[in-house]
Amino acid sequence: MSEKIRLYVDADLDAGQAVALSRDQAHYLFGVMRLQTGAAISLFNGRDGEWRAVVAEAGKRGGVVLCEAQTAPLRMPPDLWLLFAPIKKARTDFIVEKAAEMGAARIVPVLTDFTNAERVRRDRLQAHAVEAAEQCGGTFVPEVADAVKLSALMDRWDSARHILFCDEAKVGEASGLHAATPGPWAILIGPEGGFSEAERARLTGLDHAHAISLGPRILRADTAAVAAMTLWQQALGDWT
Amino acid sequence: MSEKIRLYVDADLDAGQAVALSRDQAHYLFGVMRLQTGAAISLFNGRDGEWRAVVAEAGKRGGVVLCEAQTAPLRMPPDLWLLFAPIKKARTDFIVEKAAEMGAARIVPVLTDFTNAERVRRDRLQAHAVEAAEQCGGTFVPEVADAVKLSALMDRWDSARHILFCDEAKVGEASGLHAATPGPWAILIGPEGGFSEAERARLTGLDHAHAISLGPRILRADTAAVAAMTLWQQALGDWT
Repeated sequence: MSEKIRLYVDADLDAGQAVALSRDQAHYLFGVMRLQTGAAISLFNGRDGEWRAVVAEAGKRGGVVLCEAQTAPLRMPPDLWLLFAPIKKARTDFIVEKAAEMGAARIVPVLTDFTNAERVRRDRLQAHAVEAAEQCGGTFVPEVADAVKLSALMDRWDSARHILFCDEAKVGEASGLHAATPGPWAILIGPEGGFSEAERARLTGLDHAHAISLGPRILRADTAAVAAMTLWQQALGDWT
Repeated sequence: MSEKIRLYVDADLDAGQAVALSRDQAHYLFGVMRLQTGAAISLFNGRDGEWRAVVAEAGKRGGVVLCEAQTAPLRMPPDLWLLFAPIKKARTDFIVEKAAEMGAARIVPVLTDFTNAERVRRDRLQAHAVEAAEQCGGTFVPEVADAVKLSALMDRWDSARHILFCDEAKVGEASGLHAATPGPWAILIGPEGGFSEAERARLTGLDHAHAISLGPRILRADTAAVAAMTLWQQALGDWT
């Protein structure tokens, strides 16, 4: 894990570019981490790679850093979406964090027949994805979409995007990405309690949907998300 | 996920066996879940499989359940240990939970040169492993060992047990269990900050230790634990 401070910013990044810090960022850099003028940090914005920047102005409510040089190019994740049924707050946060770390390009909370979720705060989840990207050395931040009903999402699904879904009813069957083909994919993690019969029938009937098992034990949704992304990254993603 | 209440108990389980409940278990069953005499639950003890049991006595400070019939045999996990450097409390708890879900047989907190951990409470971690087994439908509970220095553990290591370690210095290199051979294994997850040079040199010099990469992004230790266990279970464990 990088010891260097990495901050996500909205601004364009280029040599000589001055970037204004938000109040929260200034508090973190100058209040918590006690950085002073001249200190170096890293910036990324999800578009221009990672840049070395130096503190030019340090204030209690704001500050300015100056971009010096690019230290890493933009690295896009594979075209993998993570669809998941929101669960309890802490585990939902965890799934978003893990999706960003594991290299999902887009994160979509889906409401299934058995989803029993509090209101999904998209902005809060997006902030978790940003924080995870800052921590894991990423130069890209996956977008967190608004929550959508699974049935509505399937109605307008582009069948060119394969779906990998983890089916608890398959516990004990062989795992693996049997029908693995390259191209855009989405991993779908069901809620506690699994998919409804109607949902399972619909998914099973889709030519572009593939069920896998994640071993003989029942995994929590957050564990299943990491495990499924691991298998996908290993078979089809950027881990090879 | 099972809707049925599953409890881990110490007692032997056999047909007709009466099992006394602890005060905490009685509070949970009768205070929180409002079960009454005659209600059915599942019991397991890590040795005798899963048993259907019926509440015979329900009290505020205790109770008795009667074993009726075995509903699942004991299912042992593969001979896989998870060695991990304890991190912040919440993430350490998470690693133990995930190790139990993913099918580790033994969990060993290791203190490395860069480990910066509070005191490791073995009893608390063991309770997390029990709770995870209750939740994930397991009939086995991995033992949480006392924390041990990595160097001391390596001094007395049985070289018949292969070690899979996740080396941050290998980020970007090919992943995979290249030298995968069956038999007893341990997965070793380093601390935030990675292994020291001395530790890395020692591990790299061991014939029975194998380094893998977990993709181009830097994973937190808890994510790395789930990802490494996934790859191992898929290649050598009970997921196939």
